[in-house]
Amino acid sequence: MKTPFREIPGGVTAAADFRAAGIAAGIKKSGKPDLALIFSDAPAAVAGVFTSNAVKAAPLKVTIPRVIRGRARAIIANSGNANCCTGAQGVRDAEEMCALTAAALNSQIPRLQSQDVLVCSTGPIGRLMPMEKVRAALPRLVAALSPQGGPAAARAIMTTDTFPKECAVEFKVGGKHVRLGGACKGAGMIAPRMTSPHATMLCFLTTDAGLEPRALQTALNAAVAQSFHCVTVDGDMSTNDTVILLANGAGAAIGERYDRIMFQAVLNHVTLTLARMIARDGEGATKQVTIRVEGARTDADAALAARAIAESPLNKCSFAGGDPNWGRLMDALGYSGARVEETKVEIRYDGVLAVKNGIEAAGDERRRRIEKIAAQKEFTITLHLHLGRGAATMHTCDLTERYVRENLGE
Amino acid sequence: MKTPFREIPGGVTAAADFRAAGIAAGIKKSGKPDLALIFSDAPAAVAGVFTSNAVKAAPLKVTIPRVIRGRARAIIANSGNANCCTGAQGVRDAEEMCALTAAALNSQIPRLQSQDVLVCSTGPIGRLMPMEKVRAALPRLVAALSPQGGPAAARAIMTTDTFPKECAVEFKVGGKHVRLGGACKGAGMIAPRMTSPHATMLCFLTTDAGLEPRALQTALNAAVAQSFHCVTVDGDMSTNDTVILLANGAGAAIGERYDRIMFQAVLNHVTLTLARMIARDGEGATKQVTIRVEGARTDADAALAARAIAESPLNKCSFAGGDPNWGRLMDALGYSGARVEETKVEIRYDGVLAVKNGIEAAGDERRRRIEKIAAQKEFTITLHLHLGRGAATMHTCDLTERYVRENLGE
Repeated sequence: MKTPFREIPGGVTAAADFRAAGIAAGIKKSGKPDLALIFSDAPAAVAGVFTSNAVKAAPLKVTIPRVIRGRARAIIANSGNANCCTGAQGVRDAEEMCALTAAALNSQIPRLQSQDVLVCSTGPIGRLMPMEKVRAALPRLVAALSPQGGPAAARAIMTTDTFPKECAVEFKVGGKHVRLGGACKGAGMIAPRMTSPHATMLCFLTTDAGLEPRALQTALNAAVAQSFHCVTVDGDMSTNDTVILLANGAGAAIGERYDRIMFQAVLNHVTLTLARMIARDGEGATKQVTIRVEGARTDADAALAARAIAESPLNKCSFAGGDPNWGRLMDALGYSGARVEETKVEIRYDGVLAVKNGIEAAGDERRRRIEKIAAQKEFTITLHLHLGRGAATMHTCDLTERYVRENLGE
Repeated sequence: MKTPFREIPGGVTAAADFRAAGIAAGIKKSGKPDLALIFSDAPAAVAGVFTSNAVKAAPLKVTIPRVIRGRARAIIANSGNANCCTGAQGVRDAEEMCALTAAALNSQIPRLQSQDVLVCSTGPIGRLMPMEKVRAALPRLVAALSPQGGPAAARAIMTTDTFPKECAVEFKVGGKHVRLGGACKGAGMIAPRMTSPHATMLCFLTTDAGLEPRALQTALNAAVAQSFHCVTVDGDMSTNDTVILLANGAGAAIGERYDRIMFQAVLNHVTLTLARMIARDGEGATKQVTIRVEGARTDADAALAARAIAESPLNKCSFAGGDPNWGRLMDALGYSGARVEETKVEIRYDGVLAVKNGIEAAGDERRRRIEKIAAQKEFTITLHLHLGRGAATMHTCDLTERYVRENLGE
């Protein structure tokens, strides 16, 4: 099937009239890039979803009310410090980051205000932001803004990520070319369950499509539900998870019903592509496993079952070992809370039947095929419960010794 | 405070008129002990709790109805095979294990019936029991029964456990000495949430106190709620978790209210001691950490918070690393579902204040003391939420590279 859109390079600067930059400000001890700026040359509608963790980082306290206003121009984001559990000083620091960004941008955009700037942070919890470093770096960051700056911004938000995560797409609306692109980071503390105005995954999306804030938020909620909410690395939901979408309308307005369906399809594609990159690049991960549950009594039951399996340490260890241990799948399915009738359960590895009627589907030949599949870098496990039409998918990774090593300390 | 009971050796054979045995039947490839028998010389009341997993192993399907009847004499238990997801043949095999045990015991106890025997299994899921090995071993097992056989039975139920787990206590009822003892196994797939007539933890308890089945069940439910339900290794609830308590009355009857309070205290002590051994001996574990939540809005909230922290892979990695990473505690507390007001949270390591009002309690001296505590083999983290009087405790362990290695395959 031909998709009505094509992938293009550029990440968050693929869309027209967006610029970005990423530099090393010295927040990270390693000296790697740690400060990013994304900027829309035109006023933009904004939508966002943020962590539903009761403990929220300071930047979220500043950013959420601004997203609710529906309009924004810039996102200042740092890695190397989460600015979380930092009290009143943390909130003042987050506010100052916005004010400093606005001030530095004023050389180019005279009437830009602090309120037009959103702020996001990722890194260790419980330390005050090294504001003197941010202050010193901001003029340099603004000077580095470029329509080719997407990849640099994508690098500057990385923490334990092993590769930058970008995706952009071009499609047509009423004969005009429109673009939607994004960058995200993930790695650890990944089990986003965000609420609308909900992961430390950060994802910044930009589009030159034109939509009103409310329509933009509706589209983003739907996209996040089928992407970031379906990815898990370790089941630990972060205090900083943020997805922000800026739409500046420089390409074409999204008006008609057909356009909206198209826009949603594109947004779903970009967010799912980015979310799957997060699962693939989970801390210490060597394998990407898709858990698909079908035939559940309800979608909610299917989601419970898929999540229980995707988050089970024992199952994730089997993935690491390349062991098609379906007994551990049955165990997690059983405690998931979903309605399960053991004798109806069917399990397939990339389509090859492993379990039928709740017991092993016999045959050495089949077992050898399944062992080969479980040894692959990427595979899908499908569980059919034969109780209804509920379905859900989760994107997860294996649990390796490296995950443990990376998390012994900060 | 002088406790009104004293620990004694003997495990499941510490109580009068109980015998036990443990032998190697060849179910485990390693040739280690794998078949245990516990036997009461007198008819006994029985109570049990079993996994609430929707996928239940075959032996539970046989044992649960017999526990509901309230009377039993013997428990046949094997390690090396869970007899789970084994279909109708699995249930026939579990029934046969009881029948074979009864037949072998008939040489000593003429009218013992299959129904008087309970069966439990632990080990890998999805393989048929090697019944020819069980058949061949049973006469030898019965011949090995001895009033000193508790430790041998405790060894025969071990899987990846590194040490056998036993506890027994002697106390007085109406001037008479009464004993209660038990053995259990744990290690992996440990997060028991059992229902009454409900881990692959197995726990067998015996007492020569005399109680009616209903009173025995009530006491066991209460004891399990404060012990096995408060222990987690990996958050994976097993298909086979079982706790069984046999009371044969050979010591003294538990009648009066005071006796019952005493019996409950003793049962609580023995089950908590055994549960804590499971946490200490979690697969790959090097540390035992107690998570205590106080000042929650409700006990249920406190339990949510304590469990979220005790099961969080990131927190468990910090325990392994000896890193007092209170930011990860705040994170898990925040997503636990418990009501949390960030600025009220107080966290202590073995009583030393680490966090006050949601932010770090300053001081290098204090930080050094906390680092020393986090480096210990055993410590307690107390979180005070200052929202009410709800409290809960979880017993957990660290997540190490060895856990991952042990679970790459079976």
